[in-house]
Amino acid sequence: MSTRSKIVYTLTDEAPALATYSLLPIVKAFAASADIAVETSDISLAGRILATFNDRLPAEQRIQDDLAQLAKLTLSPDANIIKLPNISASVPQLKAAIAELKSKGYDLPDLPEDPQTEEEKEVRARYAKILGSAVNPVLREGNSDRRAPAAVKAYARKHPHSMGKWSMASQSHADYMRGGDFFSSEQSFTMDKAGEVRIEFVGKDGKVEVKKTLKLEAGEVLDGMFMSARKLREFFEKTLQDCKETGVMWSLHVKATMMKVSHPIVFGHAVTVYYKDVFDKYGELFKELGVNPNNGISSVYEKIKSLPASQQEEILHDIHEVYSHRPEMAMVDSVKGITNLHIPSDVIVDASMPAMIRNSGQMWGKDGKQKDTKAVMPESTYARIYQEMINFCKTNGAFDPTTMGSVPNVGLMAQKAEEYGSHDKTFELQADGIVRVVLADGTVKLQHEVEAGDIWRACQTKDAPIRDWVKLAVTRARQSNTPAIFWLDPERAHDNELRKKVELYLQEYDLSGLDISIAGYNEAIRVSMERLIRGKDTISVTGNVLRDYLTDLFPIMELGTSAKMLSIVPLMAGGGMYETGAGGSAPKHVQQLVEENHLRWDSLGEFLALAVSLEETGIKTDNVKAKILGRTLDEATGKLLDNDKSPSRKTGQLDNRGSHFYLALYWAQALAAQTEDAELATQFAALAKTLTEQEKTIVAELNANQGHQVNIGGYYRPDQELVNKVMRPSSTFNAALDTLA
Amino acid sequence: MSTRSKIVYTLTDEAPALATYSLLPIVKAFAASADIAVETSDISLAGRILATFNDRLPAEQRIQDDLAQLAKLTLSPDANIIKLPNISASVPQLKAAIAELKSKGYDLPDLPEDPQTEEEKEVRARYAKILGSAVNPVLREGNSDRRAPAAVKAYARKHPHSMGKWSMASQSHADYMRGGDFFSSEQSFTMDKAGEVRIEFVGKDGKVEVKKTLKLEAGEVLDGMFMSARKLREFFEKTLQDCKETGVMWSLHVKATMMKVSHPIVFGHAVTVYYKDVFDKYGELFKELGVNPNNGISSVYEKIKSLPASQQEEILHDIHEVYSHRPEMAMVDSVKGITNLHIPSDVIVDASMPAMIRNSGQMWGKDGKQKDTKAVMPESTYARIYQEMINFCKTNGAFDPTTMGSVPNVGLMAQKAEEYGSHDKTFELQADGIVRVVLADGTVKLQHEVEAGDIWRACQTKDAPIRDWVKLAVTRARQSNTPAIFWLDPERAHDNELRKKVELYLQEYDLSGLDISIAGYNEAIRVSMERLIRGKDTISVTGNVLRDYLTDLFPIMELGTSAKMLSIVPLMAGGGMYETGAGGSAPKHVQQLVEENHLRWDSLGEFLALAVSLEETGIKTDNVKAKILGRTLDEATGKLLDNDKSPSRKTGQLDNRGSHFYLALYWAQALAAQTEDAELATQFAALAKTLTEQEKTIVAELNANQGHQVNIGGYYRPDQELVNKVMRPSSTFNAALDTLA
Repeated sequence: MSTRSKIVYTLTDEAPALATYSLLPIVKAFAASADIAVETSDISLAGRILATFNDRLPAEQRIQDDLAQLAKLTLSPDANIIKLPNISASVPQLKAAIAELKSKGYDLPDLPEDPQTEEEKEVRARYAKILGSAVNPVLREGNSDRRAPAAVKAYARKHPHSMGKWSMASQSHADYMRGGDFFSSEQSFTMDKAGEVRIEFVGKDGKVEVKKTLKLEAGEVLDGMFMSARKLREFFEKTLQDCKETGVMWSLHVKATMMKVSHPIVFGHAVTVYYKDVFDKYGELFKELGVNPNNGISSVYEKIKSLPASQQEEILHDIHEVYSHRPEMAMVDSVKGITNLHIPSDVIVDASMPAMIRNSGQMWGKDGKQKDTKAVMPESTYARIYQEMINFCKTNGAFDPTTMGSVPNVGLMAQKAEEYGSHDKTFELQADGIVRVVLADGTVKLQHEVEAGDIWRACQTKDAPIRDWVKLAVTRARQSNTPAIFWLDPERAHDNELRKKVELYLQEYDLSGLDISIAGYNEAIRVSMERLIRGKDTISVTGNVLRDYLTDLFPIMELGTSAKMLSIVPLMAGGGMYETGAGGSAPKHVQQLVEENHLRWDSLGEFLALAVSLEETGIKTDNVKAKILGRTLDEATGKLLDNDKSPSRKTGQLDNRGSHFYLALYWAQALAAQTEDAELATQFAALAKTLTEQEKTIVAELNANQGHQVNIGGYYRPDQELVNKVMRPSSTFNAALDTLA
Repeated sequence: MSTRSKIVYTLTDEAPALATYSLLPIVKAFAASADIAVETSDISLAGRILATFNDRLPAEQRIQDDLAQLAKLTLSPDANIIKLPNISASVPQLKAAIAELKSKGYDLPDLPEDPQTEEEKEVRARYAKILGSAVNPVLREGNSDRRAPAAVKAYARKHPHSMGKWSMASQSHADYMRGGDFFSSEQSFTMDKAGEVRIEFVGKDGKVEVKKTLKLEAGEVLDGMFMSARKLREFFEKTLQDCKETGVMWSLHVKATMMKVSHPIVFGHAVTVYYKDVFDKYGELFKELGVNPNNGISSVYEKIKSLPASQQEEILHDIHEVYSHRPEMAMVDSVKGITNLHIPSDVIVDASMPAMIRNSGQMWGKDGKQKDTKAVMPESTYARIYQEMINFCKTNGAFDPTTMGSVPNVGLMAQKAEEYGSHDKTFELQADGIVRVVLADGTVKLQHEVEAGDIWRACQTKDAPIRDWVKLAVTRARQSNTPAIFWLDPERAHDNELRKKVELYLQEYDLSGLDISIAGYNEAIRVSMERLIRGKDTISVTGNVLRDYLTDLFPIMELGTSAKMLSIVPLMAGGGMYETGAGGSAPKHVQQLVEENHLRWDSLGEFLALAVSLEETGIKTDNVKAKILGRTLDEATGKLLDNDKSPSRKTGQLDNRGSHFYLALYWAQALAAQTEDAELATQFAALAKTLTEQEKTIVAELNANQGHQVNIGGYYRPDQELVNKVMRPSSTFNAALDTLA
């Protein structure tokens, strides 16, 4: 059936992967009725690890490199991909996954901490490609179009999520470096013609070391910037002193998962500044033990386990002593005593800041109580927008979901545009000297004087994605008849390069009747917020990092979650990728499932994405049934929201599995009720009848086993049979679905 | 000598009036050398009272109505007026002045508190015209041009005043009504053609009462707005609860002196809400006693003096009790226990808010310590700019006088434009009903539903002043090559009427190369502040109230005082008025003079104004000597600043009189040194020589009597002979000046 349409559904990690066991059979059954095949692609962390080491595994353990296949597919006009959220692995997560796979009999090499031999270096390099934001960049062959679907927005207005009150006297704020950071050192230029550039380090002795050679396209923008380690440490110390004086709680907000090279280093500096006394005293010992502060203070706890008990006690005592003279630190888990500096993946700025703002600007202290907080975000480029929003909330009170407008986003992202991790172009410098970017002809385009420890990075942005981004912005502004603001900061060298292109490419369009403007970040967010509280929408047209940040920030204010956003990647080659659940892969959900057999993951994002995906398939292949499937799925989703059949957070109540049942019920009912395609109506009438009649039985079967521990045979690569049993416990429902086949 | 040029120097009140005794003889002596007569005009509070009641005084006590004469003069192209600051009298100040004059043998009527008879009403009406901002509106036949002179700005950059550090964790903020205030009810329209309008009150019974009839010109803008007493009181209560919860100090900021009808009522509501328990308990008694909360809680202290001691004690006890459950209130004088609600003239928003912002956002508590403060400014129209600045300081730290730019002002003010007291068009409503503004033909142009107690007011703005204001803005933008922003808020009906005119009148000018824009208040102040901290200047082109507020706010940040601003009123008829010392009339300075014979008043504003006045005279009458006098006076002023010969605040050091001596010395030296006019050089060479030689003697004579009490024979109308002796104690200096005659 080579002409059969195909939707690729990704298998990922944690909660969404578990939910897929329950949802996918429904989707496959329904889609088959329109002759659409729903295939899967395993891009889970474990899957990627195994595929990466295929050559070292015995034949029976080898798996196909699905991610590579999927990346190829994005370049085809037929691509139709449902992309679920996956883990952006930190080093500790990667290590845990390796350990689990090894325990399952996969003979994988360990992650070399400090690679020495060629082999170790090669292994390290392979693993490095799996770390952090490794999936999205290779798939995102298009820019990003994210917005709150009408049904979701209407639901939020009718059933507003809780929003913590803001006091005008709140002491909370976002603090960031005033100089010495990436923002203040950014330089940028655009390539006249295609060519190679070298990133070079020139030592004090004049010796030149080529750190990296890049092939750049004509019109490509390259930025160079660095963060001073010295100024960063001074900044951390100053924020700590400040909190000590004012009594405001200290909290660090970085993105060590995505910014997998630079931010763990930043995080490590925070750890060694906060626990300065301990690292001063035990520096040598910690080095011997292999303590890596970039992995958090937990690295100390872990590594000292090899020491005699008395010595461990002494160190723990000294760590404890630190708390007596350092300010109170925000907790990730106050019950378990897990602080903000425990591991680098716990506090992720784009999720943690909206949560704090939604929570009256407060985080939780060690006593479990909410407190005013200094949110420390060293890099000022984007931190300023949070301070702007905090000031706004102090002045105008919390946002009101029942009346506020919306801020959809059009984000520059295609072809690793502004890849904000820029992992392979980020260097922690080992000596004082100069880093420069040099053209093939020797022309120095960028140059920075740096010190040992400074973090230097370059960032590439190709021309075609920028052009496509401008087009997408104009299209969205036109289609939704909404003002659009390009967030381009006049104080950023990179943005000024982009501004020239934007102004040029905008001329290619008829802008009559459109309100399209360009503004710096503070002004852009301020104008958007002023409109927001007056019920007005404003499209944010942003670079890649702001895309990431804003598509959490505004949805969390508007909808209480970013997982309910429609997230489309119109691929530059003509296909479409539909991302779901921007809210992450929810490790806490997995924990609840394992301990209480309740999965609170909300597959709403999947429902929304599938509907658009089905509709798009219908349009492209002129498949009426596919269009009807899409439209009725949207109807079913609206009904599900209205009838409050989304998963509850509480064990014992309807969970993910139950919400899937209701989706199937409403979808079948909608298909049975439609009159456009009689065949479909007949086909689903029976199912609708069965599900309607068996509602009580099925829900009872789905909820029956909640409250008990379950075994899913693994975290990163759970056992398929076990999960299948856990996630499909209703034989009545399963049997009903089987009748469709 | 009818062709002799004339400068009119105003005699006013308090410190500047006392300083005039010392400065004027110098000015007269120097000006005479260019054949310029310096005449005086008595517009002091006492002078105005006496002139107002000329018909009731015996012939020998009658004085000329100088203010009326001066008002006439402003309509002449020859007008050249040095206008010193005068008292904007509150009711208590007016009463004190009347009492003093009576004690001096003037048989004046008392101010009737609650006029009943026709005569009482007539007396009350006469006094009403003296209250508040009564002088400026009749003199200001031109718009306002205020800026920091280059020498002053340079001095501030070199010798920065102290600026309290701002903490990002500061709890201070400005709180204002969100609805129910003038801002939210403002309506506005422009007259097509000249005509009469009636302000009418329509009672619930349908009866129509004409409150006021106004004759409006073609193109004149009329606004109507009201403040809900009920919502105002709810707002006050909410702010008090909020402070109680957060521990932030409560502070009220109004302008009861200038807004002499509306703001005392607002102030009175604050008093009766804060002291609610006391007013609830003793309401009837207080009414009998004639307690008027609009005069502050001091009115209670004053009126209960007639009660038996035990009853007084009980009331005082109950007042004391209030403090135990109300939040801490900011103090005007913590030593003397004078709170913010003591009398309405103590905390004047345009002076108190910049002081608070300069002081780390803090005011003083009853223990004399600085504390974070909720600055309560009920009317939101302008309060929002203070909150914007507070947020800005929290985010960016205190302004830095050594690097910051400047925000000069071009203010709409001529012909009582936007007279923001609008005293004769402000009504406290006695019953529920409707207030409307009706054209002669019966068309209703504005209409508000009001309740008893609400404050309704109208505000007029003529067309010609707006046109002149636009012209002045363009002129200033061109002459100083500085961007100019018209502060016109899109959410204000009045501003939207003005915007139409501004956009129209701007078309009359060649704007090429100019950066002239229009922005709402928050945006305008934000843009100005962002530029300010980057060392850039931005002209604020504002309405009358913002003129008043901003010409304190920015100068106090930039220069530490608004008294050093150059304040020019280019009169529409062609003349010029040069205002000095926007910092008020400084009652505390008088107190120090009387107690310690040290006058710390800084006449810098007078020096700057005189220099421009002399230069203008020179240009208009082609008087070279006048031009030289002006130029050399500026030189002398610069030298005085550089040599730090401004008055010290400390008794025993150089004071106002000493600074005048140095001005004369430097001025004479500059005149002697100039080569443009030999006659002038010769004439002043002798004086320069004498003053240079006698410097030590003169300064010793000037400072000799400091540290002792002096008697000036009155506060509002001191004895001329006595003041003359006190202010001119150096016989050596006096004799030297006499040689010029």
